[in-house]
Amino acid sequence: MSNRIFNFSAGPAVLPEPVLQQAREDLWDLSNTGIGVLEHSHRGKAFSTVLLQAIADCRTLAKIPDDYDILFLTGGASTQFYMAPMNFLTPGDTADYLVTGAWSKKAVADAKRYGRVHVACTSEDRNFSYIPSEVRYSGAPKYAHFTSNNTIFGTQFQKEPTPPAGVPLICDASSDIFSRPIDVAKYGLIYAGAQKNIGPAGVTLVIIRKDLVERGSKDLPVMLQYRTHAADDSCYNTPPTFGIYLMGQVFKWILSQGGLEGLAARNEDKAGKLYAHLDRSRLFRATAAPDSRSLMNVTFVTGDETLDAEFIAFAKARGLDGLKGHRSVGGMRASIYNAFPPAGVDALIAAMREFEDQADRDGPDGRG
Amino acid sequence: MSNRIFNFSAGPAVLPEPVLQQAREDLWDLSNTGIGVLEHSHRGKAFSTVLLQAIADCRTLAKIPDDYDILFLTGGASTQFYMAPMNFLTPGDTADYLVTGAWSKKAVADAKRYGRVHVACTSEDRNFSYIPSEVRYSGAPKYAHFTSNNTIFGTQFQKEPTPPAGVPLICDASSDIFSRPIDVAKYGLIYAGAQKNIGPAGVTLVIIRKDLVERGSKDLPVMLQYRTHAADDSCYNTPPTFGIYLMGQVFKWILSQGGLEGLAARNEDKAGKLYAHLDRSRLFRATAAPDSRSLMNVTFVTGDETLDAEFIAFAKARGLDGLKGHRSVGGMRASIYNAFPPAGVDALIAAMREFEDQADRDGPDGRG
Repeated sequence: MSNRIFNFSAGPAVLPEPVLQQAREDLWDLSNTGIGVLEHSHRGKAFSTVLLQAIADCRTLAKIPDDYDILFLTGGASTQFYMAPMNFLTPGDTADYLVTGAWSKKAVADAKRYGRVHVACTSEDRNFSYIPSEVRYSGAPKYAHFTSNNTIFGTQFQKEPTPPAGVPLICDASSDIFSRPIDVAKYGLIYAGAQKNIGPAGVTLVIIRKDLVERGSKDLPVMLQYRTHAADDSCYNTPPTFGIYLMGQVFKWILSQGGLEGLAARNEDKAGKLYAHLDRSRLFRATAAPDSRSLMNVTFVTGDETLDAEFIAFAKARGLDGLKGHRSVGGMRASIYNAFPPAGVDALIAAMREFEDQADRDGPDGRG
Repeated sequence: MSNRIFNFSAGPAVLPEPVLQQAREDLWDLSNTGIGVLEHSHRGKAFSTVLLQAIADCRTLAKIPDDYDILFLTGGASTQFYMAPMNFLTPGDTADYLVTGAWSKKAVADAKRYGRVHVACTSEDRNFSYIPSEVRYSGAPKYAHFTSNNTIFGTQFQKEPTPPAGVPLICDASSDIFSRPIDVAKYGLIYAGAQKNIGPAGVTLVIIRKDLVERGSKDLPVMLQYRTHAADDSCYNTPPTFGIYLMGQVFKWILSQGGLEGLAARNEDKAGKLYAHLDRSRLFRATAAPDSRSLMNVTFVTGDETLDAEFIAFAKARGLDGLKGHRSVGGMRASIYNAFPPAGVDALIAAMREFEDQADRDGPDGRG
């Protein structure tokens, strides 16, 4: 068994080690069927069991009401950017978008092909470093759309926005899905690429209220209608079987960790330690507004690009990988999703301390 | 190491065992990076290496000319059913479709949303049990589309059709991709869900001539334009990284087996043995017309549904799984894709012989 390092990748991201170990077994032979998980027919009994268990565990862990369908689609959140408006908007309709980062903007661009977009709030004025406190909805939007966590900018809605009564809330939850309890009943549609908190790249979890499934346009290719996938437990065509299997394993792991409450406590603890260190550091500072900080992606800088690059190399040499921030923000980003181990956060803080001490020795102003 | 059985599944299907063994290692730690293949950022060096090598190996093994892009998309062939016409047809345009099975029909249904469809041939009159020898193209179609192998009906084009000069040939090659040499220069676009011959479910290989990439509509969501994916080596958004990795491993395996020529010889041998047995059997007979037989999916019946069911159970008890035919044809289907081992074909023939002998003993007419 080789040494695994601490992987701060923003996604695809670290997965729970017990899940990986089980997957290594099941790749060769799933449940003593003599056939590996990749090789089972999606219509056979072995995979059906996997699929139905994944749906059941998903429903249990997020307390998803019975009037919601749970779908496993493909194409990532980027596919939902057009699939949602394509289903729910017609020309003349308006949809409200809360614009808090690069992904929201892409979602807006696609929605504009199908109807009008009202920007209900935006934080672009300060490089998306905060979540706006004020949201102005339009009169009667067909839906309101927001991005619950902004991977690039390290911000996160502390609670879901509240559109006017009767307006379905649609959420791109790709980067914080199942990192804390969620009141699904407040949403019409939640979608999430799996590759950050709940699985591998290539599968998208969609939780959709059944009346929206039915309300969706019928004037679309069958594959682009939610009802097609809802009617057949995501098996209208061959689904991404391994992604579904692995997500199911992650769901089991989440349940074993005390469910969403258990993960939330762990995630708060991990991020809390990191922000506390950043707040007292003389060298590093967090970039997101304190009331908007993400528990998933902690973005920080020294204020000096050369020093940022030095720290990234310094950390990498200590087995802390993937800390380079997105080019839109610069500096560092520690992505500490559900499966990221607390020990990795401790190791990062230790590395920051060591680097700070070294900087102190190198120059009287602490900047080398 | 448990006993693996012979898996005749029509897809997802058996994968090469050396590929599975390598994947088990790489799931935990890819190339001594300390990070598993599922957990690597799609923009990092380790995954880029995997991706570019997969593209290079694909180009080598199928001798794909430089003026073709190699893309890894999602959503299966069913997504290409609408993505291709959406890109290449406008109302008033005509596309020609060669209709040889259930998948062709679905492709036609989606194409009709975007333009006119001319059915250039169809074998529906005899339940798709043959590939029509005569094809009547329309005047100047935007493209001609065919399904090279019909999984359900066990038929296969023995060579590609020849539309009028200048008409791009589009092929759904999901169930026989890379099972034999292919002259890519004769095609405009080839697409294939990976889960039969080249990888796991959840990734679709697309080989597309660059002028078609450019000719595609720009009035579509970015994700539905081929150019988006061509411009960024399929990394515009997070691609199905594990599917790409595994397909790359299968490409390496194909090269190690003597490439497409090597596989073709092996596939001809496997299917040849099976059809030879069916042709001399007093109990079983192949359902596809002799000149249209698939080397990938061998469909056969006894002519008696009860006896079919008995044989399927008989075979299953001997470790031969997945032989039940599709409900449209009934009987049995032996899917013997690239990775299906020759020993499994021998085992199936032995089981047929044993069953025939038993039937002979049970009744004088050999039908029990």
